[in-house]
Amino acid sequence: MTHIPGRFEPPPRRLMGPGPSPVHRRVLEAMARPVIGHMDPETLRMLDEIQVMLRDAFRTSNELTFPVSGTGTAGMECALMNTLEPGETAVIAVSGAFAERMVEIARRCGADVEIVGDRWAEPVPTAEIAAALDRRPETKIVGVVHAETSTGMLQPLDEIGALCREREALFVVDAVASLGGIPLEVDGWGIDVCYSGSQKCLSAPPGLAPITFSAEAAAVRANRVQPPRSFYLDALFISKYLGSERRYHHTAPVSMLYALHEALRVVLEEGMEARWRRHAEIGSELLAALVDRGFQAVPPEGYRLPQVVCVRLPDSLAEPDARRRLLGEYGIEVAGGLGELAGKVWRIGLMGESCDREHVKALLDAVDDLLAA
Amino acid sequence: MTHIPGRFEPPPRRLMGPGPSPVHRRVLEAMARPVIGHMDPETLRMLDEIQVMLRDAFRTSNELTFPVSGTGTAGMECALMNTLEPGETAVIAVSGAFAERMVEIARRCGADVEIVGDRWAEPVPTAEIAAALDRRPETKIVGVVHAETSTGMLQPLDEIGALCREREALFVVDAVASLGGIPLEVDGWGIDVCYSGSQKCLSAPPGLAPITFSAEAAAVRANRVQPPRSFYLDALFISKYLGSERRYHHTAPVSMLYALHEALRVVLEEGMEARWRRHAEIGSELLAALVDRGFQAVPPEGYRLPQVVCVRLPDSLAEPDARRRLLGEYGIEVAGGLGELAGKVWRIGLMGESCDREHVKALLDAVDDLLAA
Repeated sequence: MTHIPGRFEPPPRRLMGPGPSPVHRRVLEAMARPVIGHMDPETLRMLDEIQVMLRDAFRTSNELTFPVSGTGTAGMECALMNTLEPGETAVIAVSGAFAERMVEIARRCGADVEIVGDRWAEPVPTAEIAAALDRRPETKIVGVVHAETSTGMLQPLDEIGALCREREALFVVDAVASLGGIPLEVDGWGIDVCYSGSQKCLSAPPGLAPITFSAEAAAVRANRVQPPRSFYLDALFISKYLGSERRYHHTAPVSMLYALHEALRVVLEEGMEARWRRHAEIGSELLAALVDRGFQAVPPEGYRLPQVVCVRLPDSLAEPDARRRLLGEYGIEVAGGLGELAGKVWRIGLMGESCDREHVKALLDAVDDLLAA
Repeated sequence: MTHIPGRFEPPPRRLMGPGPSPVHRRVLEAMARPVIGHMDPETLRMLDEIQVMLRDAFRTSNELTFPVSGTGTAGMECALMNTLEPGETAVIAVSGAFAERMVEIARRCGADVEIVGDRWAEPVPTAEIAAALDRRPETKIVGVVHAETSTGMLQPLDEIGALCREREALFVVDAVASLGGIPLEVDGWGIDVCYSGSQKCLSAPPGLAPITFSAEAAAVRANRVQPPRSFYLDALFISKYLGSERRYHHTAPVSMLYALHEALRVVLEEGMEARWRRHAEIGSELLAALVDRGFQAVPPEGYRLPQVVCVRLPDSLAEPDARRRLLGEYGIEVAGGLGELAGKVWRIGLMGESCDREHVKALLDAVDDLLAA
């Protein structure tokens, strides 16, 4: 018998990485409520309310809209596994690590992947996607990451939906880091499948991945030749639990649903437009202040996310030492770079609850200390 | 803009279904602690402690032992997706709905499944598994459900491990409803992959699936020709986050980890043997009292789970009315039957925190009321 460890007390942290973001006191309190059953009529009613609120947040009327019982990567798998069959073609616009993950997962679905762009931190022009669809007219889905947290880059989406409709491809969007932070219009932009994560701009704990499927995308799942490679993420089976049949599929993570329900209430009380404005304003204030201090934005102007500020460090700050000091001495978490940006950049999250001027001031004060040292 | 729903307040419930089980106050309090990052050194330290405690609970020294970021079915997929490649053979012992789910998932892995048994609520004799291995000497895995929550049946495991070793097949065990409730010896019984769920006899909220892989099973993943069909559940990549590389794979569900950490502390403070004794004693007391009242146990004697008492109803109680009255008038949740047992049985969970005499008395008092009506 091993020694039993002590109770875990998380240290005080100011979360300014690209997720998880700080969780509102109301949401933490919701998590502490007693667990009830996943088939309880009250749980099912709460789940209905979550679906209504998610439709509001996604700006969609899609019936099939729900939280996947896993983190953002599970949402990505749910989107791709339900829409792709072996041998089908996926065109994926790549400008960072999460689009590369989309490529990896599409390949594990057995798809033939056509990569477009493939330049980190550079948005993919719609014309390049159109050219890929000319080369591969049989394309089943076009996959795009809206807010690439590995590079802080915003990919414009508004023209791609019409292109996909014209070429009869499904438009699949990764909105893990964008939902609740920057404008996202699932129906308005013609998006067929859109997934997000609970722990970014929604400021719930990590563990759920909101997702929505258009009627066309739901029909693609319903009419598959082979079932999806995952049973757990099978949207058709999940829809029978969500819908009037109430058929058991898997045990829903009830406490996480409490958290998401309350987090969505906080989001909608503020209002989507107000939330987008807050992120835009405070994000540009932070970036301007960092540029003043010798940092350089990684993505080109006009394509910078306010909620994930990705900046190259001035020569006077060394990675990972400066970042470790931020955490150890100031209790501030920011993230380093992934892939080719490792050791060169910081990724600073201003997501949901961390997107306020007090957080910005605390970070800048600490950076000034480090620069003065 | 839709109306924002009110705050969700779960109604008072006495959870006596086959999961989720009631969650200890200490575990609920842990969920309410502030979220910190998944790459935070303190989070990683906590995750190390969880791994140590899970090894104790599973009775294993397996290095690769961790909580899957999903519910029990995700654990099942993690076990099968990492060990099976397309075209390989899986022998699966079926005596209820969760073994049927194993068959379904193995097929979605591309495996050729040989079903053994296939009689609900009847344990599968080791000789039948041996005969299947004679017919299919190429078998890659043998899959068995230890505690079949759909029928309340206990499948003895102690002989099957040696058989699998002899025939060079991996022994994969579903311990979703058994870990922390009845004796389970991963190393002692020669189990190669064993997975469970947080919300059963461990009495944490649903959302995590503890799993353990023997060195042989981990080597099978490492030496695959094709990668697993899921990236999210890829045990090799997850091992690089768990191990000294600390490589990011997916955002761990931090609040759920807090809950599991505290739930495991509660389990190990009681001690595994004491916990097994408590379940055995109270489960047999409940069953005896129900038999006195005209209920009949579904599984044969000697193969009855104490933590999931599955009983046919006396003629005087009608499904689902009596069960709805239990919930609506007495606040007690029990479950009905799945599949061929739907409408005929109750499945009563005495798991972890619900396994006490006060719960048993409350249920029996309510049943007496219903029988007297």
